[in-house]
Amino acid sequence: MCRWLAYSGTPVLLETILYRPAHSLIDQSLHSKMGVETTNGDGFGVGWYGLEADDGNPAVVREIGPAWSNRNLREIAGHVRSPLFFAHIRASTGTAVQQTNSHPFRHGRWMWMHNGAIAEFHRVRRDLALAVDPRLFLDIEGSTDSELMFYLALTFGLEEDPPGAVARMAGLVERVGHAHGVEYPLQMTVAVTDGERLWAFRYSSQGDSRSLFYSTRVETLRSLHPDMAFLREVSDDTRLIVSEPLGDLPGAWNRVPESTYGVVQPGADEIIQFTPLAA
Amino acid sequence: MCRWLAYSGTPVLLETILYRPAHSLIDQSLHSKMGVETTNGDGFGVGWYGLEADDGNPAVVREIGPAWSNRNLREIAGHVRSPLFFAHIRASTGTAVQQTNSHPFRHGRWMWMHNGAIAEFHRVRRDLALAVDPRLFLDIEGSTDSELMFYLALTFGLEEDPPGAVARMAGLVERVGHAHGVEYPLQMTVAVTDGERLWAFRYSSQGDSRSLFYSTRVETLRSLHPDMAFLREVSDDTRLIVSEPLGDLPGAWNRVPESTYGVVQPGADEIIQFTPLAA
Amino acid sequence: MCRWLAYSGTPVLLETILYRPAHSLIDQSLHSKMGVETTNGDGFGVGWYGLEADDGNPAVVREIGPAWSNRNLREIAGHVRSPLFFAHIRASTGTAVQQTNSHPFRHGRWMWMHNGAIAEFHRVRRDLALAVDPRLFLDIEGSTDSELMFYLALTFGLEEDPPGAVARMAGLVERVGHAHGVEYPLQMTVAVTDGERLWAFRYSSQGDSRSLFYSTRVETLRSLHPDMAFLREVSDDTRLIVSEPLGDLPGAWNRVPESTYGVVQPGADEIIQFTPLAA
Amino acid sequence: MCRWLAYSGTPVLLETILYRPAHSLIDQSLHSKMGVETTNGDGFGVGWYGLEADDGNPAVVREIGPAWSNRNLREIAGHVRSPLFFAHIRASTGTAVQQTNSHPFRHGRWMWMHNGAIAEFHRVRRDLALAVDPRLFLDIEGSTDSELMFYLALTFGLEEDPPGAVARMAGLVERVGHAHGVEYPLQMTVAVTDGERLWAFRYSSQGDSRSLFYSTRVETLRSLHPDMAFLREVSDDTRLIVSEPLGDLPGAWNRVPESTYGVVQPGADEIIQFTPLAA
Repeated sequence: MCRWLAYSGTPVLLETILYRPAHSLIDQSLHSKMGVETTNGDGFGVGWYGLEADDGNPAVVREIGPAWSNRNLREIAGHVRSPLFFAHIRASTGTAVQQTNSHPFRHGRWMWMHNGAIAEFHRVRRDLALAVDPRLFLDIEGSTDSELMFYLALTFGLEEDPPGAVARMAGLVERVGHAHGVEYPLQMTVAVTDGERLWAFRYSSQGDSRSLFYSTRVETLRSLHPDMAFLREVSDDTRLIVSEPLGDLPGAWNRVPESTYGVVQPGADEIIQFTPLAA
Repeated sequence: MCRWLAYSGTPVLLETILYRPAHSLIDQSLHSKMGVETTNGDGFGVGWYGLEADDGNPAVVREIGPAWSNRNLREIAGHVRSPLFFAHIRASTGTAVQQTNSHPFRHGRWMWMHNGAIAEFHRVRRDLALAVDPRLFLDIEGSTDSELMFYLALTFGLEEDPPGAVARMAGLVERVGHAHGVEYPLQMTVAVTDGERLWAFRYSSQGDSRSLFYSTRVETLRSLHPDMAFLREVSDDTRLIVSEPLGDLPGAWNRVPESTYGVVQPGADEIIQFTPLAA
Repeated sequence: MCRWLAYSGTPVLLETILYRPAHSLIDQSLHSKMGVETTNGDGFGVGWYGLEADDGNPAVVREIGPAWSNRNLREIAGHVRSPLFFAHIRASTGTAVQQTNSHPFRHGRWMWMHNGAIAEFHRVRRDLALAVDPRLFLDIEGSTDSELMFYLALTFGLEEDPPGAVARMAGLVERVGHAHGVEYPLQMTVAVTDGERLWAFRYSSQGDSRSLFYSTRVETLRSLHPDMAFLREVSDDTRLIVSEPLGDLPGAWNRVPESTYGVVQPGADEIIQFTPLAA
Repeated sequence: MCRWLAYSGTPVLLETILYRPAHSLIDQSLHSKMGVETTNGDGFGVGWYGLEADDGNPAVVREIGPAWSNRNLREIAGHVRSPLFFAHIRASTGTAVQQTNSHPFRHGRWMWMHNGAIAEFHRVRRDLALAVDPRLFLDIEGSTDSELMFYLALTFGLEEDPPGAVARMAGLVERVGHAHGVEYPLQMTVAVTDGERLWAFRYSSQGDSRSLFYSTRVETLRSLHPDMAFLREVSDDTRLIVSEPLGDLPGAWNRVPESTYGVVQPGADEIIQFTPLAA
C-alpha cells in the first residue's frame, strides 16, 4: 500500500505542500497513521505540470529509495512551482523496488497514481496484460498492478472518457478476478489528470476502500481560520486530495465517500457515484 | 549490447577471474575492445554456485550502476569461491536500467545471460510474451528481451533439453520477427547452466554474430606456458567462455564458430552445430 | 540511531540469524521496538570473516537503501557462511545517507559498528578529527561520528588494547564535549572485532545507554528448550550480541549492564566495568 | 577527471544545452574526446538559479550513477528553465562514488565545480583540512579535493573577492604540496558563481592545464551563421564555458588561455592573468 497527494490550484512551490504541513506526505513516508503499512519507503515519485505552455506534458521524477532522506526531492520541491502536481510514496507488497514501479505513471499529457491492489495479482496478471491494446502494451515498463490498471484504462478510452474508462478497467479486473476465484478482486484509490482536470476514484470490490480525503473549499476555510496567511494567498479553486489528512486545521478535510469519484475542474467540482462497467 | 563471462572448474575466488587478468571483465565495463559499445555501465550481475550442497540454487547479485566503481562487487569477488559462476556487464539499448533488467536471470537451479538483441523488440514483444507458459509468465520481472528469451526457452523445455529449447526459442523469435517484416530478427550469444553443465550459444539470423571465445585446454596451456603458476593450480577441466578474451596469454583463446553451441560438462566438451527449430 | 547484531560461533548461513528469527534484524529495519526511531531505513551493512584462512580480512558489503527490500542482501545472506559476522541497520540523525556512512567500518582485520551519537557532533567534529593520527586520517571516507570514533580508537591503540583504546576515545569525546559546553557528550553501544575476539561496549555520559543484550549460554538454553533443533547444531561457545532481542525464546537474552563491556573469546567470556580514560 | 559546463544568459530549458547539441555534455559522459578519461560515469550534478526572486539560492541535484542513463536528469532538464546553471559529470580518480562527492558544491548562494586534481591528495588532505575556517569545516560532507578547494576558497574570502580567494587557495595547495615534496601540486579548471557573476579559472602548477573553452560573442556568431534560429533567440550576453566544445558550429569556441580566469558579468567580460597568492 502507499500514500498519495494531488494538488490543483494557485501555483506553489512543491515544498509548501510536500514538506511544510504537520504530518506532511514526507512525514507519512516514515510514519503513516492510516495506511496499512506505517512505513512507505519503497520508492516515491512526483509529477508536475509547468507554469508555461511548453508541450503540456508533465515532468515525472521517480526514485527507488525512501522519500524522507532524498535530498534531490528536497531540492526540486524547494525550487519548482506548479499549479497541478501529484506526489506518491510507495510501500511495495512484493513487486520489485525499481524506478519503473514508482508512481506516478505518465502517458503523453496524462498522469496516474494509485493506492491499493489487485488481489492475487500474480494469478490474473497475464489475462489482464492480454487485454491491453497491443500498441500500448509496448510502453509498459514496470511490473506493478498499478501501471497495468493505467494501461487498461488507456485501452478503454481514458483520454476521451476518464470515468467510463476507469469503470471499464475496474469491471474487467473484477470479471477476471472472479473467473480465477478471487472474491474481492479490486481495492483502489486512483488519481488521474490530463493537466486540466483531475479525477479521484475511491472503490473496492468489498465496499471497504482505503481512505481518501478532499480539502474543504478555500473560502469556507478562510472564514473558519481568518488568521491563516496561506489561505489568503491561494485562489478559491485550490484543492488537495490526499490519502491521509495533512496538517491539523479543524474542518479542513472531508472523506471521499465509498464508491464515488470526484472531479476537480474549472467551475463546480462534483462527486459522483462510481460503478464498474463491463469492459 | 553487453559483455559476459562464464567460469567452470577448480573453485576460485571470483576476483581471480573478474579483476586480476589484464583486460578483465571489469576493465571491459569501461573499455571494451570488441563490443558494439565501448562502455558497459548500465548495470551488472554475478551469479555463483556454492561449494556446499545447500539447496543447489545459485546466488545472484545484480546492480544498476557501473561495475567498475562498485565496491560491493569487489568485496564479494574477494571473499567468495565458486566452481561455476557467471558475470555480466550491461550496456542498455533503451530498456530501463534497473535491477530486474540486469543479468544473469535465475529460475530455480538455472541461470541465463545474454549479449545481443531481438531486433525491433518493441514490435514483437507482445507476441513473444504470449508464447510464454502462463505459469512461468508471472515470474517475469523486468522488461528486457534477454529475460523473455529465457522464459521462452523454459517454456520450450530448457530444463529437459537445453539445446532443443534454445533452438525452439530462436525459431519462434525468427518466425515472429519475420511475420512483422523484420529481416534479421535475432542476434545472440547466450550462456545457460544448471550448476552441473554449461551451454554457450552463438547465433544470429544474419550469420554475423557477436564475438564469443572459449579457453584452450588447460593441459595444452601448461605446456605452452610452463611457468604460469595459475595454470598449475587449476584442474584440467577448468574452462572459461567469454565475450572478449581476458589477459594476453598467447594461444589461450579460441573463437566459438558461427551458428554453434558448446557444452562444458564432465568428460569431453563438445561444439555442435546450432539451427533454430520450429517452436 | 541504529540497530546492530554481532554473531560469533558455529559457522552459519547469515540468513539463519538475519532473516529467520521472529523480530529479526531485517524486521527491525521496518519495525524496531526499542530503538529511538522505529524505522532504520537509511542504509545497512554486513561484514563477515570467511571460513578459510585467506588474508583474514573481513568482507564488508554496505548499501544506502533500506535492508528490508534489498535483494542482494537476501542473496548474500542465503549463500554465505561465517563463524563471525556483524550486521547493522542505520537510522541517520542528519548526516548523509551514503555508502561510506553505513556500518560496519573496516580497517585491516578490524571491524567496528555503533549505535548512538556524539552529542552536538557538528560543534566538536573538527577538534576530534584533529586528534586522529595523521597517517590514519586519510582513510576516513565518510562523515559520521561513528567512523570518527573508530579512527580515534585506532589512534589510541585499538589493535593492541581494545578496551583501553575505546576508553581513551570515550574520554576524549567527553573532554572535548565538555570544553564545548555539552553536558552529556557521548551515547554509545559499540561492537569491535579482529576476527578472533569480539568486544561490545555499552556506555553513555548520562548513565542511560541504548539497550544491548547478549545471548544466554547455549548449554543453558538447551536444557531450557530441549526440543529446539538449532540449539543442538551450534557449539557451546556460540554467542549473539544485539541491540534488541531476536526471536521469542524465553530466557534467551540478558541485558548488558550499564557502563560495562563484554569480551567474547576462546575460553570464558567476561563482562567488565567500563570507564572513560584521559586520552 | 571530469567534464563541466556553465551557462549564463537568456533563460533556457536545461535540455537545450545539456542534451540537444551534437557532442553534448551528456554525450561526453559516455564519449569524451578531450578528457583524461573517455568515460565520465561516476556521478553527475546540475545546479540552477530560478527565474524568480525566491531566496536566491540555487537548486542542486546530484546523483551517483552515470548521466547518460539517468531519467530524472532528463525530466528536470526538459522542464526547468534557468538563466544561470552549472552541470558536471564525474570520473572519480579513487574517492568514493557518492552524492556528497558529486559537483556542483553549494554554500548559500554560491556554487562551485571543478575538473582536475590536487596531486597526492591523500598526503596533503589533513594539512589542507586544518586550514579551513572551523565554522565552515562542519559543512564539508564529502571526501573530494574539489569540495575542500571550495571550502578553502570560502575561508580565504570567496564571497568578497573571488579571484583573490581562489588565488590564495591555489597558493596554499602549492605550498602544502611542495612541503610534502610534490613537484606539481595543482591541476584545475574551476567555475564559481554567486548567481550574478560567474568566474572560470584555468591553472596548473605545471603550466599544462586541462582544456577549457568559452563561447564566441553571440552577435559575432549571428553574423557568421545568420540562419541559426537559436542564436536569434538568445541575448547578446549569453555565454557558455565548457571543458570541451559542444556542437560543431565553426567559430563558436575559444580556448581559455593558460593561467587565466574569465569573468562573465553585466557589461564587458574579462580575461585576466591568474597567479597563486600566499594564503
